[in-house]
Order: sequence, then structure tokens, then C-alpha cells
Amino acid sequence: MKYFNNTDTICALATGGGMSAIALIRISGSDAIKISDKIFSKKILDKESHTVHFGNIIHNNMVIDEVVITIFHEKQSFTGEETVEISCHGSKYIQNKIIELLINNGVRLANPGEYTMRAFQNGKLDLSQAESIADLIESESEAAHKTAIQHLKGGFSKKLKLLRQKLIDFASLIELELDFSEEDVEFADRSKLNNLLNELQAEISILINSFRIGNVIKNGIPVAILGAPNVGKSTLLNNLLNEDKAIVSEIAGTTRDSIEDEIIIRGYNFRFIDTAGIRKTNDKIENLGIDKTIKQAKKSSIIIYLFDGSKNIENQLTINNNLNKEYQDKIIKVINKIDINHSIKTLGNDYLYISAKENLGIDELKNKIFDFTNINSLDNNNTIVTNQRHYEQLKNTLSELEIVIEGLNNGVSGDLLAVNIKQSLFHLGLITGEVSTDDLLSNIFGKFCIGK
Amino acid sequence: MKYFNNTDTICALATGGGMSAIALIRISGSDAIKISDKIFSKKILDKESHTVHFGNIIHNNMVIDEVVITIFHEKQSFTGEETVEISCHGSKYIQNKIIELLINNGVRLANPGEYTMRAFQNGKLDLSQAESIADLIESESEAAHKTAIQHLKGGFSKKLKLLRQKLIDFASLIELELDFSEEDVEFADRSKLNNLLNELQAEISILINSFRIGNVIKNGIPVAILGAPNVGKSTLLNNLLNEDKAIVSEIAGTTRDSIEDEIIIRGYNFRFIDTAGIRKTNDKIENLGIDKTIKQAKKSSIIIYLFDGSKNIENQLTINNNLNKEYQDKIIKVINKIDINHSIKTLGNDYLYISAKENLGIDELKNKIFDFTNINSLDNNNTIVTNQRHYEQLKNTLSELEIVIEGLNNGVSGDLLAVNIKQSLFHLGLITGEVSTDDLLSNIFGKFCIGK
Repeated sequence: MKYFNNTDTICALATGGGMSAIALIRISGSDAIKISDKIFSKKILDKESHTVHFGNIIHNNMVIDEVVITIFHEKQSFTGEETVEISCHGSKYIQNKIIELLINNGVRLANPGEYTMRAFQNGKLDLSQAESIADLIESESEAAHKTAIQHLKGGFSKKLKLLRQKLIDFASLIELELDFSEEDVEFADRSKLNNLLNELQAEISILINSFRIGNVIKNGIPVAILGAPNVGKSTLLNNLLNEDKAIVSEIAGTTRDSIEDEIIIRGYNFRFIDTAGIRKTNDKIENLGIDKTIKQAKKSSIIIYLFDGSKNIENQLTINNNLNKEYQDKIIKVINKIDINHSIKTLGNDYLYISAKENLGIDELKNKIFDFTNINSLDNNNTIVTNQRHYEQLKNTLSELEIVIEGLNNGVSGDLLAVNIKQSLFHLGLITGEVSTDDLLSNIFGKFCIGK
Repeated sequence: MKYFNNTDTICALATGGGMSAIALIRISGSDAIKISDKIFSKKILDKESHTVHFGNIIHNNMVIDEVVITIFHEKQSFTGEETVEISCHGSKYIQNKIIELLINNGVRLANPGEYTMRAFQNGKLDLSQAESIADLIESESEAAHKTAIQHLKGGFSKKLKLLRQKLIDFASLIELELDFSEEDVEFADRSKLNNLLNELQAEISILINSFRIGNVIKNGIPVAILGAPNVGKSTLLNNLLNEDKAIVSEIAGTTRDSIEDEIIIRGYNFRFIDTAGIRKTNDKIENLGIDKTIKQAKKSSIIIYLFDGSKNIENQLTINNNLNKEYQDKIIKVINKIDINHSIKTLGNDYLYISAKENLGIDELKNKIFDFTNINSLDNNNTIVTNQRHYEQLKNTLSELEIVIEGLNNGVSGDLLAVNIKQSLFHLGLITGEVSTDDLLSNIFGKFCIGK
């Protein structure tokens, strides 16, 4: 397993590629200082941890760059290993040259996620915290950032530790009963056992259910804009997207790559499903249009259904009645083009009235979209599961627990229950890494970028 | 002038945008530590320069990120000002959030090149050194890097200082004569003056001439591949480009954005001029083809003229005789498709024999291309001018000097000569920034990126 060769000193670029004022190369491992010392103009062998040194990177008596070197001693760095950070000019030539020099001096290029994995293996982070680093880096919205940082700070791990402790308490009660089973003594108080199990079941279920929110926080809440041709679907989409981009670009110089079809409302990411398919059906038979519309509707959590306020509304409603019935719980009905026909507003509160073109009613629409998510009802201090792998393991834990509950109710003996309790502990342990396999680790860290 | 508000504390992202393991935010100015202290979980007000501190960035009791903060005291930083570097996770959300927090606490977002400009204004760098930072960051080839780092380390500045000293010496001799001119005494020894002027003229001329090389080092050496349709021009181009890309990608993980139509030979950058125009003339009259060919030829320093070795060579040579005559000094004659007709090699040493398809003779061709540049003949320790602005000012210096030389030969009086000597000093001073104007500075630093 390439992931377990931890005696090597590794290096990689830690900052974004391309040209920039500064780039950072990180070296981690027992030879980090010794090898850096060889290519640096100043002696750094006896320097204290957390100190910074200005000098030159030298190769064949030629200056490669003026750099600032930071030293972290063993156990005092992110990885837990001796670490050197070289802050050089952000030229691609220089970055490559310094990494080449390090490699020629015996440093190995890091594998994807290898720094974070070493931090895990040196006990600096548990597995779920390590995974949250990737989430943190990828977070685009306030909500995604908030859950990721909560996980990194160990909020989720703490919760899991408590669950694990309860399970172990339960297991020991059962084991106790097991040891004395020949004497036909029931040491474990069945009602106490039941209470503990119910608590566990409830808490794990809450975590499992939180994944519905956690998943949309991480991946965005899918929204579809539907409606007949020429009701103004793309005008509305562009209005929503452009406004978001304008807000983002207010912090000049801090560019965010524009994400096609994503906007952030009150810190949450809403991802618009491409409804191009519907737009193209202008000339096709109505049935085909409805089919495609329903396909879009299925994929989304929220449907904005757009009507053309400048035309006969009654007509439009009848045609799409099918859709209305099946998905009515997630439909926001919106009447567009109120700039052309202002009097349409008399239709009542079932509808929102906007003009995508003239930017009328857009804020109300956004509020409505946000309210539809029910995110607000979520307690801010709740732990939210955002990771698919954690979700799967929690479900596995719960299904083992449910076998235990059923067994307990049916008078199954303690030694049989113990098997399933151990299984549920195993699944829980896989989340934090108290139990781990080589495959699991390569699978998790292999998805990281090099440099993390 | 926005560039001269140096009392502000400024901040900007110093590393490349986008997602990465680590991003670096740099804060410079008299309040850098005080303001950073406000948003950081640890007290850093009394910490020593060049120390590193691990903690949290906090906003409204919420952790924004776990970061490492580095402190540089006044006069001990790149800008010469108090500086704080925040090394955070490379999430765009976090980068933006921290910069937003800093701005809300009174830090201003830096203008393009403002860090480097402050370094210049605080005497940490002269102007030509400051400009070399941009060149250094943009350098793609070994040669471009080498000249940029030489300029940054002050090689060029030192040279200019010597020239300036000689000019001042000369000026003082002339001034001396001027002071005593009423007594009709010629204090300045005319032959000494002449020698000094000749030295200056020679040295400045060498610098001016070096720009021919400096410019190609910086912008790449333009090469055109010409030849009749279907002789294999694009096969050759692809062969050259692909091989280069393969070499570059050997250093895994250190990606270089692939630069269209550029290859590096022995550390120098060769830029292939798009010869698509010629390729498109297949169906047009021969004259038009030749016109376009000549246009490409004019733009390039080197012409690879490709012949089809599988066809009648004599025929091909006659057609393009025109071009051959005018540009023969920069033409490398290459016979392609020797895989089809190997016996063609008997044509002699005027030609290179290759097969672009089978990768035969390509190394020899590269050597020939490199030899054609005459770069090798250049002394490695020579100072090379790479900057258009410096080149222009050197030419201005020289043209003033030439007026002085002529004046001296024609017995023009010292007080008249003094005007031109002062002008040449002025132009020389503009290069290093001993003389500078607001416009000049905004022009130079405005071209930098934010963060530099």
C-alpha cells in the first residue's frame, strides 16, 4: 500500500497552481529540515519550531529564488511530523524547479491526501475530521462551510464518541449476562437495556435524517424552473444568477469562479437544473414537452412553475394540471411579466407576481424558495451528516441495532445479540477511523488532491 | 494618486485563486498586527518578528478557519512595513470571508502591485528590481527565470549605478570647467572626457543590444514552419509540441498549463507562429501563397523551410526561390518524409533530413534551431535588458550622450553640454527609480496583479 510508506519525506505544492505572488511548497517527514537545509542559503538545522527564515534556494551556485522558510518541529505541525514550508514566488518555473530539487535530494512527491492521512495516522485528527478538510476546502456557501468547520473542530466526532460509549455500556451489560448465563441469572436489567437501545436508535436516526439537509448543504438544493415556452424561464434564471454574481464580485479581487447555474440564498447553495430540454420542445407535440417537464420535476427539490402573466392564465393552468397534481408540494407558482399586465395580481395569494425582465418581485421569490427548504426549522447546534460514507455507516449501525432490539423483544440470548452489537460498533468505528482498513483509507485519501 | 496612500493597511490574497490545500492572505501596514489580533483567537500583539502562531480566525464567536499566522515586524518584511501572513485552508469561501473580515476591521484591499510598490518606496528594492518580480513570476523558461532573478538580485541595478557614477564624474568635470569658464581655463582634460564618454557609449550600447536577446528570452523566439501544402508542417509542429509536453509532465503533480505552440529547447522558449494561413492556400493561386509565406517569414527569427522528400525536390526549390533569397540568413532547410524516401539524404549538408511522422532527425533539428539563435555566444555573466521600458530609456540616454559626444568634438561649450548630460542622467534614473513620477509608477505597478 503506497499510503503506508510513512518513513518517506514528502513534498508537494500546497497552494493553487498557476501564476501568483506567492506559492507554498510543503515538506513533511523526518528529513524535512535536513534536506531543506541542503538547498537553502542559511543553516536551519538548529532553529526552533515555528520560526521563519528569509534566504535563497540555491542550485549549482545559482539562486533559484528568494524565499521565506517556516520550520515546524515533530509533533508541532499539521501532520505531526517535522515540516518545512517554502514560501516562494508564484512562478510555475520556480515551483517546479524547487520541487525537482527536493526530489533530487531524496524527498518524494506526496500522494493525493497524504498530508492529511499522516495527520490522521499520527493522531492529529480522526477520520471524519480528516474528511471534513476536503469538504472545508470545497465549501462554497456559508452553510457548507459551517458544517465542514464544525466537523473539523470535532463536533461530529464528539457525538459519535458518545454514541459509541453508550453502545459499549450496553454491550458490557449484555456480556455480563452472557458470563453468568449458565446460572440462569439475568444481570442486565431489561428495561434499562431497552431504554439505552431506544436512546441510541433515536440519536442515530436523527443523524441519518440530518443527511437529507447535509446532502443539499454540500451539493446544493436542486431547483427547476418549469413552464411553457416563452414564459420567461431563461430570463428569470439569468436574473437570479447575475444578481448573485454581482453580489459576489462586490468583494473586489476575491474572485469566485462563476459556477454555472448556482446561486446562494441566505448562505445556502441552490443549484438550478438545466431545463434546456424543455425550451427545445417549442415545435414538438405537447406530450413530449410534459414528459421532459416531469423528468426535471423529479430531480428537483423545488419547482418554480412560471406562467406568462401577459397571456390568458386559465388556459395555461389547465394544460399543466397533470404536473400540478403529482408535484404540488414542491411547486412555487410564479406569474411573470407583470410589467406588461399589472392587473394580473388579482389572482390571489396562491401565486407570486414577478417581472424577471424588470427585476420586480425577485426578492420575494428568493424568500419563498428559501422557506420551501425548511432549513430554518433546523436547530443551529444540531450535528448534520454531510458525508455519504458516514451516512451509509450510520444506516449500517442502525440496521444492526434494530436486529438487537427485535432480538431483545423476542428473548434472543445475549451471546447472539452480542454479534450484532459488535457489528454496530464496527460500523460506527469506521466513521471516525477507530476501525480502518487500507482500502478504506486509500479510498478516502485517494480522492483528495495532491498537496492536501 | 491612489498609489500614494501609504498610511493604509492593505490586504490581498497572495496565492493562486481557486481551491487548494492552503491559501495565503497578506496584510501590510502599520495596523497589520493590531487588526489581525482582533480576529485571531490568540494574542499576537507582543510577539516577536518571524514567528508563527497556530489558532482560529473568529467572527461572531464562530470559527471561520484554523490558520497559521506569521508575523513580520516593520523593516523586517518584504514591503518594509509591519506584515501579517494568514495561511488558511484554500477554500474560496474562507478566503473571501477572511478578507471581508479584515476589510470590516479597517484594512483596505490592495491595489495591483501595491505590495511591491511599497517595497520600492521603502527602499527595499529599486524600480528595475521591482519590475523584475513580475518578470520572475511570469517566467516560463530557464533563461527567462535566470535573467529575472539576476535583475531581482540587483545585477542590472549595479550595472546602472556604475554607469550613473561615470556620468556624474563626467558631469562634474564639465561643471568644473563651467565654473572657471570666464578665466578661459580648460580644467577638464579633453582626452579623459572623450575616453569616459566612449566607455559609456560602448557599455550602454551593449546593454541596448542585449535587448534583442532579452526580448526573445522574455517573449520567446519566434519560429515559422513554412513549406508547400502537404509537406508535413503540422505533423512537425505537433511532434515538437508533444514531445515538450511529455518532458514537462514528467514531474508529476507540478502541472504547467500547456502553452499553445511554445516549446522549450535548452532552457529557451521558442514560439511557433501560426502558419495556418499558408495551409489554407491549397486551392488558391500560388502568388497569394507566397505573399502569406513572406508575411510569416518577416515575423519570425527562424524559418524552418520544409520540403517533401518523397517528391521531386528540384521542383520545390524553384518555386520558393524568392523567399530563399530574401530570408536566407534565417532559413533552416529541412527535408521531411525520409521514412518514405531514405535515399534523398544524398542532397548534402545544406539540408537537414527528418521524418516528423517517425520522429527521425528531430533532435538534430532542435540543435540546429538552438544554434541559429546565437544565444550560446552570449557571455553568461553579461547583463541582459529584458524590459521594453528599460530599453527605451537606455536608448534615450544614449541619444543624449551622442549629442554630448558630437558637441565635444565640435567645441560646444560646457554649459550647453551640461543640459544633455543632465538629460541622460534623468533617463538613466528613470530605470532604477532614482527619478520617478506618479504616472510612471501607476503605469508600472498597475500592470501587476492584486496580491503582488
